[in-house]
Formats: sequence, structure tokens, C-alpha cells
Amino acid sequence: MKKNKWNSYEGHIDLAIEAKESFPGDGGEINGVVLEEETIETIDMHITTVEIINEEGKKAMKKPIGTYITLESPWLLYGTEESNKQCSEALTKVLQKLLNPNWKKMLVVGLGNKDLTVDALGPSSMALLEIHPLGQEDKKHLCSIAPGVMAQTGMETAEIILGVVKETKPDCVVVIDALAARSLHRLGTTIQITDTGIEPGSGVGNHRLGLNKETLNVPVIAIGVPTVVGAATIACDTLDALVHVLKAEATTSEIGSTLESFQPEEKHQLLKSLLSPQVRNLFVAPKDMDDMVHSLSSIISEAINLLL
Amino acid sequence: MKKNKWNSYEGHIDLAIEAKESFPGDGGEINGVVLEEETIETIDMHITTVEIINEEGKKAMKKPIGTYITLESPWLLYGTEESNKQCSEALTKVLQKLLNPNWKKMLVVGLGNKDLTVDALGPSSMALLEIHPLGQEDKKHLCSIAPGVMAQTGMETAEIILGVVKETKPDCVVVIDALAARSLHRLGTTIQITDTGIEPGSGVGNHRLGLNKETLNVPVIAIGVPTVVGAATIACDTLDALVHVLKAEATTSEIGSTLESFQPEEKHQLLKSLLSPQVRNLFVAPKDMDDMVHSLSSIISEAINLLL
Amino acid sequence: MKKNKWNSYEGHIDLAIEAKESFPGDGGEINGVVLEEETIETIDMHITTVEIINEEGKKAMKKPIGTYITLESPWLLYGTEESNKQCSEALTKVLQKLLNPNWKKMLVVGLGNKDLTVDALGPSSMALLEIHPLGQEDKKHLCSIAPGVMAQTGMETAEIILGVVKETKPDCVVVIDALAARSLHRLGTTIQITDTGIEPGSGVGNHRLGLNKETLNVPVIAIGVPTVVGAATIACDTLDALVHVLKAEATTSEIGSTLESFQPEEKHQLLKSLLSPQVRNLFVAPKDMDDMVHSLSSIISEAINLLL
Amino acid sequence: MKKNKWNSYEGHIDLAIEAKESFPGDGGEINGVVLEEETIETIDMHITTVEIINEEGKKAMKKPIGTYITLESPWLLYGTEESNKQCSEALTKVLQKLLNPNWKKMLVVGLGNKDLTVDALGPSSMALLEIHPLGQEDKKHLCSIAPGVMAQTGMETAEIILGVVKETKPDCVVVIDALAARSLHRLGTTIQITDTGIEPGSGVGNHRLGLNKETLNVPVIAIGVPTVVGAATIACDTLDALVHVLKAEATTSEIGSTLESFQPEEKHQLLKSLLSPQVRNLFVAPKDMDDMVHSLSSIISEAINLLL
Repeated sequence: MKKNKWNSYEGHIDLAIEAKESFPGDGGEINGVVLEEETIETIDMHITTVEIINEEGKKAMKKPIGTYITLESPWLLYGTEESNKQCSEALTKVLQKLLNPNWKKMLVVGLGNKDLTVDALGPSSMALLEIHPLGQEDKKHLCSIAPGVMAQTGMETAEIILGVVKETKPDCVVVIDALAARSLHRLGTTIQITDTGIEPGSGVGNHRLGLNKETLNVPVIAIGVPTVVGAATIACDTLDALVHVLKAEATTSEIGSTLESFQPEEKHQLLKSLLSPQVRNLFVAPKDMDDMVHSLSSIISEAINLLL
Repeated sequence: MKKNKWNSYEGHIDLAIEAKESFPGDGGEINGVVLEEETIETIDMHITTVEIINEEGKKAMKKPIGTYITLESPWLLYGTEESNKQCSEALTKVLQKLLNPNWKKMLVVGLGNKDLTVDALGPSSMALLEIHPLGQEDKKHLCSIAPGVMAQTGMETAEIILGVVKETKPDCVVVIDALAARSLHRLGTTIQITDTGIEPGSGVGNHRLGLNKETLNVPVIAIGVPTVVGAATIACDTLDALVHVLKAEATTSEIGSTLESFQPEEKHQLLKSLLSPQVRNLFVAPKDMDDMVHSLSSIISEAINLLL
Repeated sequence: MKKNKWNSYEGHIDLAIEAKESFPGDGGEINGVVLEEETIETIDMHITTVEIINEEGKKAMKKPIGTYITLESPWLLYGTEESNKQCSEALTKVLQKLLNPNWKKMLVVGLGNKDLTVDALGPSSMALLEIHPLGQEDKKHLCSIAPGVMAQTGMETAEIILGVVKETKPDCVVVIDALAARSLHRLGTTIQITDTGIEPGSGVGNHRLGLNKETLNVPVIAIGVPTVVGAATIACDTLDALVHVLKAEATTSEIGSTLESFQPEEKHQLLKSLLSPQVRNLFVAPKDMDDMVHSLSSIISEAINLLL
Repeated sequence: MKKNKWNSYEGHIDLAIEAKESFPGDGGEINGVVLEEETIETIDMHITTVEIINEEGKKAMKKPIGTYITLESPWLLYGTEESNKQCSEALTKVLQKLLNPNWKKMLVVGLGNKDLTVDALGPSSMALLEIHPLGQEDKKHLCSIAPGVMAQTGMETAEIILGVVKETKPDCVVVIDALAARSLHRLGTTIQITDTGIEPGSGVGNHRLGLNKETLNVPVIAIGVPTVVGAATIACDTLDALVHVLKAEATTSEIGSTLESFQPEEKHQLLKSLLSPQVRNLFVAPKDMDDMVHSLSSIISEAINLLL
């Protein structure tokens, strides 16, 4: 997929793979960033591991040091019973790679707003988890919570989670959240798993505080699926398409070339002028988004059930 | 609000008031279309009545002959208990104007998908209605149904409604639906009431068949609220803003002027090239859309409760 | 299971198998009633087919002429993934026996109130069905509706269904409903399938009108699961237990014997005195009823999905 | 209301007013227990304040030292807009009496299972609360959480609450829960407010751990509404009615008198024999329980909204 040239000039990027793509040459050779790719043919799944290994990589990617694994497959969105099973298994394997295999008690947190379809991935996944309350010896203990959003609770979500973690003492936390992507084609077709947890400013609901090993004092793995793109993406895509279309016609090719030749600074400035504050508060989502959220929360909850 | 120049070249328009605005000079003097305006100061409500009175008006507006009343107020979206009450009363009055006062049995239909927040206005309103089952003499009888969408039922929604209407024989039908707007500022701040029912191709869910006096054999009043804009709107808005920004700078004003001077045909052609089929399947909505749907379905259901 | 002696004197019985059990000798030799039994060992499932073949049987059983098949298994309530699959397959087979194999368009109706856990079996099953809208040649067409209850719609549920059937013309109808049982041990462990449809007065919600081949003009198969018992059952069970306990003690055995020796007429009269009208409006249900409804609606919807 | 003679021999009683009624003479003169009564005529509301003031009262009532205020009114169950408003105001007044008026930050906790209608009072009330997130100076801060039940989260609910309280530091906690009553006539017509919090073993969901000032380290007020009665109540009611009916007939009056003359020990023993363990896991509820829960959660949430 061609990099979106205008998208490069915006703020926070939820997906590490999109942060990488925003570099010239797709960011293949950034210092401090190690890349690994793999494919599962039966489900057309492309697995990309981006490892940010030092301060240099952190600065370039504007993301914390850690591992970011992306599963990409069209089957995530429109699956069969069989493909869903394989997708869940692939996700289970990735989780096992990032988890300490000796974990005894896991807290799964479904972030987001169950009343807002695009933000409901976390709570929907919780509803499908098979809880394992403590009791039997030698058994792993799985618990879960969907804390809601600040507009519902009046509390910072991170505070609720921190309180629950301190009191119930899980030895690992898995957080599930809906993300914003830059590219339309990622909606519902990508899962990002990272051992860096949730960053401030990320997610459909724009989390104010982070959820990670530093804040919660236990390892935190985040599973994120892009369910929206910012409305700004449509504006950027329009500009890219405009340049392309204008250049293709003899009578307008000069205008197209002029627009294309703008310097990064100029592009950034232009975009800021084009996008009203109102637009920043909008999101773009597909019309069958309820199916998308249902399908992906099934795959994710099943993957966690398979850990046991 | 300035008319969006690029928006004029697209297909179906849900709101009559936007169809009117797409004409030069805001369409104030279209033959066959009568306009009337009114204001309720306490809630900053602007009430516009568009009457399409003959074939000429119908052709110009691309909408059926009939009455289209639009309530516009910022209080619809962010109201207090008191403003909500006044908004409901204003809507009740409009409904009384369009209804035969001697109605005995009303069927209220909540169209849309309860699992998709932007399309949930109809089902949410149904949940708040006060049903009046038949029984007592001389009392009006209010019944309601939320038939779901084709992806849930496997049936055309219009067929379900038609079957229920034939069997239960209401003497009027009120249909509530979420609409798509052209302008972002209309999201949640506008209610359209029309005695022409639901048009084919309208609504967030794109109804395939119409629901009106011809198809149901009883008077049909539709109450619609725009909860989304098409993603194409963002593209059009971007082009308008681009022209504006380019013209304002000395170095780029010429490019701006050239883009602006495109003929309608050229603009239409350009937009078609810019918008991928994928974009047409996307919608744009605000992040606090669940509150918007909750607030508006309360106002609408309360307005209907007040009819009794 | 011992027949409940006091329960015999009450009104409508939803389950044919309980109607049969209310006869002396468990009703094995009622004229006009044919009995057949079968077992699936792997899931401890007991399948009983009660056929009412003529007016004599109809009068004795107080149920319409037709076939009543009961699946009984503890695994229905507390199943594993594997047992659920086998339960669904057993149900699919029964449905295939009662359905004309050449059906082209099936309407599945989920009766009941989704907001009342004990009555939510029908709507819950609908949410899990895989709808097959018409379109492709030579494919069976599966559609569904959850019409709600009269308190929600203000309409007779039977009228809504009749309207939809007349308009959409399915060639068979499958109705799913929550039933009331006489015996506590049946809650969630029994599925009744019958080709006589839904009787007036049956179900948790006490349907006023019947849904059957006579009223809908197409074959109607009803799938029912007892999710409640009437509060009267607890009263009857208490009297039976009382007799038993009193007889066991030397000092009270005489009282026990006297109570036991009451004539049917006397027992009936006594029960009528004991049960206040309020009690008739109560139901008894287990505390984990939400799990029960979830498990059984999964098994039922999966069984219907398997038909395709 | 006549005291239920057989009901006296059972275990935990959720309502203080029922504990009091289980004493001879309705417990009017128990040492260590102070009683006060009041009436609001317009809504037929009877307000009873039971104060347990010392160890003697605690031992007699089997309830912690503290204040228990009961609001009883038929309008709680079947109200008009106006009566609901008055019921909310009465509840607000009681809360103000028990709360320190200088509270700055209140956490409202909705206990129970939103998927089980009879246990959904707490979560339903949360959905209707008007949250006041911190921000503006000098404003009271209202936050809320519906933590779910152990079967959903795998964690003790009390642990979740304790964690959240420790982290977010409210200066008072209000807990809302569905209770079990002894008398059918209390279902939906009674609200109990107490400053002793939630007792272990109470509630429809049988809370294992208490939530009170000792465990949470801040004042805890509990608002409880009986939505079920135990199935055992029906058995006890049946026995009481049986004695009454048998005594009334000349031929059976002797049996009736003998049953009545059983000593407390004998009655207790008999009940234990009659009630199977299965019965203890059942509850009895009215068929229109969804309306009951909806109505009461509106009254309660509105009463809390009125505090601000």
C-alpha cells in the first residue's frame, strides 16, 4: 500500500506499522528499529514484528521501546468458522510469545464505550471471555473488567484499572481497545499486539493516561484493532487523489505538479488551515461496523480462551 | 451557512432543506416550491417549511410533492431538561399540523439498526414511547414496532411494515429514522418532519423501498434526524477549503482561482475520480454520537407521548 | 420422576410430556396417544415422541392433535462445546423429521421479552441465527423476526406475525418460546418440539392467540424450553413433601394419611383456597437463569443454522 | 400485614423491617432498637426508621448497629410522573439525613448482574445517573461504577470496589442493590436505606463480603429494593394458608390445630425436611419485573441526581 503523503504531517499514530510506513522508503532502515516479517498462507495473514530497541528508534518512531506485532488479513473482517479459528490461533501464539508462560493470574481489561459501536471492541470481547475464577489448585486464574469510559463513570479509566490491579494482584494484564488508523484499508483487517501497553492519546476514546508496566507495576500487553480513521484522513486522501488526477490531465498537470512540490512545512501548514477543529472530533467508519466489531471481538476473546 | 459548492454534484439528498440550499441563491425562488420561516427565540429554534406543490417543484427538488418541515436548534444536541421539553413541544405542534386530528390508532415505526449507534435513533425512540394498547373506549391507541434491518431479519423492512399495517389497520403511521446530511453542522441539530414518508435510497441504512401513503395505504409521516454525513462530504469540504486557502496566498492564488473556475461538469467528473467506491460506503460521525442519539430519541419519543 | 400429585388439579400445561405424566400410571396407555422413546447415550439424552392421533387423545391430553417431541438431557443446561454440538445436531434431526424437506423460505420467530431474562429465549436465539436473505438461485432463504411483547408494541404478537407471514410468504414458520413447566427439574433441561405450533395460554408471557397452521396458513413448528415454573408448583411440592414427612413420623403419621386420602375434588378445592391471585402472577426461576437462557438459545440457533 | 409464622425459622433477612416483624408483637419493644414512623399522605408513603443502638439490639435483630430507613409505597411500583418525582424527593431527603452534607466526591456503586432482570437494579440505576466529573472548582464530584458480578469478572466484587475506592478516594460511597424479601407484598414497593452498607450474604446475588465503613474506610450508604422472594417463602405461605383453611372446616379443623400447635423446634425441623437444596437456589418474582426494575431505578437515580 502506497504511503499517504499528506498523512505524514499529523500528530499521534496508534499503529506502529503506520508510524514506520510514514518514513521515506517505508522506514525499512531506521536505526534502532528491527523488522521481521512472516506469512500464514491459508488465511493470507501477514505478520510484521517491529521492535524498537533503543532511544534512537523510540525518537524516530515516536513510540515507546518494545515489541509491536501486527497481524494483517482480510479474513479478520469477513471470516468463516474455520478462518476465525485460525486467526484466533495465530493471535494466541503471538500472545504466548509476549507473555511469561508461568503467569498464574491474568486480568483482561476491555476498554471503551459499549454504547458506541466503533468503541465497543473491548467491552464486546469481555462478554465472550470464559472467566476462570480462583478456586482450584494449579489452575490459571482469568478475570476481566470492562470499566466503561469517563463520560459514564466520572473517573479516569486508568485510575479504576490501577485500583483493581493493586487490590486483586494479577501477574499480567491484557488490555483490549479500539484504535484509530490512518489508512482506510486497515479498518477491521489489522490487529496490533504490543508489550508496551496503552499510550496516552491513543484509542478511539483518546486515553488521557497510559496503561503500562510503569503505571500498573505488572507486564501489560495491549491488543488493538483499528475501527475508525480520523476524518482528517479523508481530507489527506482527497489531496493525494487530487494531485494524482490533476497531473494526469494535460490541461491541469501543472497545477497538480505545483501542489505536489509543496515543501513538508507548507503541506503541514495547509492541512492545519483546511481542517477545522470540528473535523478533528469526527471519525470515519464503515456502515457494517457492527459486524466488524462482532467478528473481531469473537476472534480476540477466543484467542485468550485458548491460552488456558 | 455557506453552501458547499462541491457538494452540489452528488446523488440523493435526505434533507429537503439541503436540496433547496444546493440551488444558486439558496433556492429561494424555485417555481413550485413555497417557503415559510419561523423562529422560537427561547430555544434558538429556526423552523423552515418547504412545500413542494407541483411537478415543477418536484423535478427541481428531486423530492416528492408534499410538506417538509425542518426544526433547527443547537439545543437539540446539548439540551437542559427545560429546553428538551420545549423542543418536544415544538415537534408535537408540527406533528399535529400534519396529522388528521381524528386519528384513532397510530403505528410508530422505529427504523434502523439498534446495534449501530449512528443508525439506532429509531429503535432507541421506540424504547422510550408510552404504548397505549387498545382496550378503553374513546381512547387513542398507540402501538409501535422496531423491525430491525435486513441484515438482521433477512426481509425487506418495508415488507414487514406493510404486513403489520395491513393486519393491524392503524389509521396513521409515523416513521422515525436516522438520516445522512451534507453539512457537518446539521449532525444532531436538525429534525425533518414530512408527510411524504420515507423515500427509497434515504437514511443511514439506505432503504431500498419507500414507506408512504402509496405503499402503505394510510398517511405516513416521517421524522428524520441527520446523524451522519457521507465521507464524500469531507472530501468536498476539503476542496472548498483548499480553494479558499490557496486564493488567500499571493503565491498560490492563481491555482486557487483555476480550481474554482472549473465548470460544473468538470467538478462532477473530478469528484467521481477522487472518491473511491470504498469511500461511498463510509460515514462520518462525531465521537459523542451515543449522547446525540440518546438526547434526540428522548425528545422525539416525548413529542409523540405528548400527542395523547 | 414421581408424578406431583397436587399439580394434577391445575389449568394449562405447556409440555405434552407433563400432561401425559399427570395421568395415573404416567399415562402410558391413553387411547389416541402413541408413545415412542429413544436415547442418545453420549449426551444422556432421552427423546420422547408423544403423538396425539385422534379426538380421544386430544380430549384426554387437552392438547391439539399432532406430534410432540421432547429432548431431555442435563447437558442442555451445563454443556461443553462438544455436548452443545451434539445437542444441536439432535435438535436439527428432529426438526428435519417435522419439516417438509423441500422448504424454500423459512421464517423463524423469536417470541418473548428480551428485557425479561426468563422470557428472553426467543429474542436471544434470533440474535445468533445466520440469516440467509434471498438472492442466490437454488438457495434456501432464512429470515427471522423478534416481534416483542404486547407491553412493548401495543399489538397482539399473533397479529404482527400474521401480517409478516401474509406479506413475505414463507413456506414454513418456526417459533421459539420460553415455556412454564410443572417440575423444577425440567428448567433448562428439556426442549419440546411440536408441529402444532403455539397454543393460546401457553408460554411465560401467556400468549392470548395461537400460532399454528390454521391461523398462519403455513406449517408451524414450535420449539419451547421451560425456563420457569409457576409459583403454584412450589405450593404443590410443599404439600406433597408435607404428607411424606408427616407420614414418616409416628406421632404425625395419622395427619399425613388423612391429608393424603383427600379426594381429587377436595384437593382441588384446597389448592384454590391456598393460592392467592397474586401467586398466580409470579414465577419461580433459578438464580443462574441468564446462563441457562444463553446456553439454550445457542443450542437452538445452531440447530437451525445446521438446517442450511 | 400479618407476620408469617413459618418464615421466622429461616436464615439471613435482608430487610431490617422484616427482621423486626419476625418478633412477637411485631418487635415493637426490643431492647436496643428504637423505632420511628412517619407518613407522606400524597403518595401513601410509610417511612419507618429502625435504629439499632447497641449490642443488645444487634444481637436481637442479627444486624449491625446503625440506622435502617424503609420507604413503603404502592406508588413506587406503579407511579405517575408526579408520584415518581415525589418518591425521588422523599429518597433524596433520607439520603441527606444519612450523608455528611460537606461531601465533595461521591462514588455510586450499582451492584448486580445487568443480564439478570431481577438483579439488574444497580446497573440500571447507573445508566440513568448524571455523572459530574471533576473539573470545576467548588462543585461536588459524582462518579459511578457497575462492577458486574463474580461470574462475569472472576473477581470478588468487594475487591474491585475496594481497589477503586483506594485509588480514587471518594469521601462517601452509595451502593445500590437488589434484595430478597420475605413477603410477596414488598416486591417493588419498598426501599431500604441504611448507613451500615451491604452485609455479607445479602442481595439477590448473595454477596460474600461486606461493603461498609470498616472494609472501605469511608462512610457507606446502601440503597436496597426487594425484587425477589426466596422460593421458601411460597412454601411457608402455603403452610400458613393450609393451617388457616383446615381450621375453617369442621371436618379438618383438628388437623389444622395440630399443625398450628407445633413447637418452634418442630416447625423448623419440618421446614428443613420440606425444602430441597434445589429450592434454596430458586427465586420468585412477578412477571412484569422488567417494568418494576425500570421504574425503581429511575426513582433512585433521580434521587441521587437531586443531591447535586
